[in-house]
Amino acid sequence: MENLKIGGKDPSGEKNSRGAVAKKDKTGGPKPGAKMKEVKKETGLGLSHKKDENFGEWYAEVVVKSEMIEYYDVSGCYILRPWAYSIWDTLREFFDAELKQSGVKNCYFPLFVSSNVLEKEKNHIEGFAPEVAWVTKSGQSDLEMPIAIRPTSETVMYPYFAKWIRGHRELPLRLNQWCNVVRWEFSNPTPFIRSREFLWQEGHTAFATKEEADSEVLEILELYRRIYEEYLAIPVIKGKKSELEKFAGGLYTTSVEAFIPNTGRGIQGATSHCLGQNFAKMFEINFENEKGERAMVWQNSWAYSTRVIGVMVMTHGDDKGLVLPPRVAPVQIIVIPVPYKDADTQAIMDACSETVNNLNSAGFRAEADTRDNYSPGWKYSDWELKGVPLRIEIGPKDIAKKQVRIVRRDNSVKKDIPSDNLVESVREVLESIQESMFKTAKEKRDACIVKAKTFEDFAAAINNKKMVLVPWCDEEEVEKEVKARTKGETGAAKTLCSPFDQEPVPEGTLCFATGKPAKKWTLWGRSY
Amino acid sequence: MENLKIGGKDPSGEKNSRGAVAKKDKTGGPKPGAKMKEVKKETGLGLSHKKDENFGEWYAEVVVKSEMIEYYDVSGCYILRPWAYSIWDTLREFFDAELKQSGVKNCYFPLFVSSNVLEKEKNHIEGFAPEVAWVTKSGQSDLEMPIAIRPTSETVMYPYFAKWIRGHRELPLRLNQWCNVVRWEFSNPTPFIRSREFLWQEGHTAFATKEEADSEVLEILELYRRIYEEYLAIPVIKGKKSELEKFAGGLYTTSVEAFIPNTGRGIQGATSHCLGQNFAKMFEINFENEKGERAMVWQNSWAYSTRVIGVMVMTHGDDKGLVLPPRVAPVQIIVIPVPYKDADTQAIMDACSETVNNLNSAGFRAEADTRDNYSPGWKYSDWELKGVPLRIEIGPKDIAKKQVRIVRRDNSVKKDIPSDNLVESVREVLESIQESMFKTAKEKRDACIVKAKTFEDFAAAINNKKMVLVPWCDEEEVEKEVKARTKGETGAAKTLCSPFDQEPVPEGTLCFATGKPAKKWTLWGRSY
Repeated sequence: MENLKIGGKDPSGEKNSRGAVAKKDKTGGPKPGAKMKEVKKETGLGLSHKKDENFGEWYAEVVVKSEMIEYYDVSGCYILRPWAYSIWDTLREFFDAELKQSGVKNCYFPLFVSSNVLEKEKNHIEGFAPEVAWVTKSGQSDLEMPIAIRPTSETVMYPYFAKWIRGHRELPLRLNQWCNVVRWEFSNPTPFIRSREFLWQEGHTAFATKEEADSEVLEILELYRRIYEEYLAIPVIKGKKSELEKFAGGLYTTSVEAFIPNTGRGIQGATSHCLGQNFAKMFEINFENEKGERAMVWQNSWAYSTRVIGVMVMTHGDDKGLVLPPRVAPVQIIVIPVPYKDADTQAIMDACSETVNNLNSAGFRAEADTRDNYSPGWKYSDWELKGVPLRIEIGPKDIAKKQVRIVRRDNSVKKDIPSDNLVESVREVLESIQESMFKTAKEKRDACIVKAKTFEDFAAAINNKKMVLVPWCDEEEVEKEVKARTKGETGAAKTLCSPFDQEPVPEGTLCFATGKPAKKWTLWGRSY
Repeated sequence: MENLKIGGKDPSGEKNSRGAVAKKDKTGGPKPGAKMKEVKKETGLGLSHKKDENFGEWYAEVVVKSEMIEYYDVSGCYILRPWAYSIWDTLREFFDAELKQSGVKNCYFPLFVSSNVLEKEKNHIEGFAPEVAWVTKSGQSDLEMPIAIRPTSETVMYPYFAKWIRGHRELPLRLNQWCNVVRWEFSNPTPFIRSREFLWQEGHTAFATKEEADSEVLEILELYRRIYEEYLAIPVIKGKKSELEKFAGGLYTTSVEAFIPNTGRGIQGATSHCLGQNFAKMFEINFENEKGERAMVWQNSWAYSTRVIGVMVMTHGDDKGLVLPPRVAPVQIIVIPVPYKDADTQAIMDACSETVNNLNSAGFRAEADTRDNYSPGWKYSDWELKGVPLRIEIGPKDIAKKQVRIVRRDNSVKKDIPSDNLVESVREVLESIQESMFKTAKEKRDACIVKAKTFEDFAAAINNKKMVLVPWCDEEEVEKEVKARTKGETGAAKTLCSPFDQEPVPEGTLCFATGKPAKKWTLWGRSY
């Protein structure tokens, strides 16, 4: 980080020295032969909404223009284009390897579930019933019984857990599947964040003891934290969900919670549930323990979904487009030739492809943009829109000086670096970008956490788009009341979690809402 | 292969020298303390059906008992347990890397498709309509319009191809997705082979020229051949489908065709279709070519599914259970301790875990079976049922002699090998197993191909469970007639493919069915 001279070169010198339009013009549209003069913007390149002014419109626009998402003709469903799917693949690779290492096995259970099985765990089905999609016909024929599409797979899988688990030697049983699920929601579909079909992994495990289940809940939660913090550069808070917010039918739910400062809304990042023995009871998942006695298993389920990509876009994106953390960016480095009128174009092209080859051989994901019908300036804007972390520009002067120019996406800082030290420099800069993106996001997030002790302070902070940490009596009815009270003026606030990492509640502290003795610090906010 | 002494040791000497029940007894059930004496078979271990006697029952039994499949309470749907899913993962890893190398990008399109889009290509929808599952309700509410679940994604994707493709620089567009599809078939559901939901990859590509499309069709077909021949050790025949058998709505279809000698049925292994411009016309997928003219794209689609696993089971399995090719086996080597009454059990256990560690460090997938409630003999049968390619037995004599005993699953050959040369020996044996399984399967398959020139010879061969290569006039109506004529006595025969690798049809050769001039050699058979 320190060896990167931030702002060491005057950007206003760009145009003459490089033969390209100034970057901030975002002009020079896709008109062959128009490279060297400024032409009127003709395409939809660039965003028409600003993140701070119209966040919702900005988000809807950036996911489409960056080619992550295409809207689909079935409402609430979205197409994940390669630019988004590649991020999903990268995260999957990390998570899947960790699971395998830890002894979890992949499997695949059917998409369909019969209604009698789906409805077996009462609390569970109450949580999901309104959103279940039903297949009632095949071809022209009505099915004898409607069949549900899984909204999640607890009830799909657990009858077979009961069948497979006989004795303690079959435990733990730890399965995972990568699949699609369907929740036919009507409120506000949003790409990645809330869609009627989405992709996720769902882990389902059974243990002989509660201790083992408890420990796995946290093991998995830590992997979710790593996905957010280490891969997506998004700070999250680990904690436990309230009774009202926990998984329908489970014992307790832990989660990683992110926050979107622009909207002042918390967002549940991923959840790791301890189901206790509730499902085991309903589905009769018993085993013979080491003493030869019948016992009931302890179960967990845990999931993260394509939502993670949406949180990433919301956290890092800016008015120029996506900003992708280097560890997940489909293209980490885009190399752009900057030919000048009388320069040796072939030498520039050769230098570009040599640069790409060197970087790819060193394990980076680099590409050259050699399209001949776009100006360098147009390409800069295009790859900024797509969020590529680092741009390398190569023009005649760079070749003469045996250097390349690098430009960071996250902070626009430019620097010339010697070509012979390219790989090492790029590695350092990418690491610095990754760290710096996390640090910036964390500072913004931290500035949104306030402590309050009274309902008035609480409501004011919520209204001011903050997350609020309050001492709370931890009663389900009280959460319902607070939700109702905040619904009118400020937009209903609910608990996000009780953070694991919290100070002790001082003796005699009272609940912010009821004046009863407070049990813990709990984080509240509006949420997605 | 040559340095493995086949049958170098007398199996009848087993019991005394190793303290375990003879392998072929399949006894010594899961009764703690019963290890040293022969006990009556108590569990369902072992198969009750024989492959040559009741093939269908044998197959249904082996996929369940080997823990690949569990039957599910929605008819025609099956659970893929880790033992099967792991094979799917291995193949996916190979194929996905090849696609990425070749420039294909992964994406994800929705599960749902609206009826007006689904029905846009007339021939296409006629092919799929009877099998389409329809969602008509969410929660308690009826949907305004029924929505179909994708049986395949041509119509899901191509409206967006039309939107995305503008000029020749956007071509080729080469996308792939890994997903589930649903075909609500009523005929004879069979695990892996024919199920109402299945997993597959589907590639969808668009090119500026027919030449490029043609060339990709074969590039992908070659990858499918490699999956079958190099990974699953199953010989396949590459060829072109007849007009009657080609993909609904496409221009032509190529496939790899496998054959199951026991049932005398061909089975389509995977298909690579050239769609021509049929879909491009319907969905208006046009582009501006290099001359600035409007042109229509050429498209392909191609897929292989979890069916490949079923073909593998059918091809290699025997009366003891699965036989897995080493390259795809979830466990390649199972190490089994063979403790003898007065022997140093700890030393044996240590030798087993050292062996496993050595093998895993060398990149193999090895496990030790240290369960203390099963006899070695029971474990042999158990892992034979699961098809693990190589068993290593370690007893006191082996330790004394610094050797291990290896036993091949495919041919039961045993051999003692020095411990200090373990990794190299195991590598050679696994390679030999892989080769030998392919060779054996190919010999059996080749013995089922006969040539015929008259309808009588043809029908007799079909009846005799063969594939029949005949000179054919290649007319759609004639195929329908032959199907009808063979339906009664022999079970309807259809074309499997016209093999790419075929001798020229001699001048004056007549069609086996019509006596018209023959155009090509075509392979016919009953099929799955």
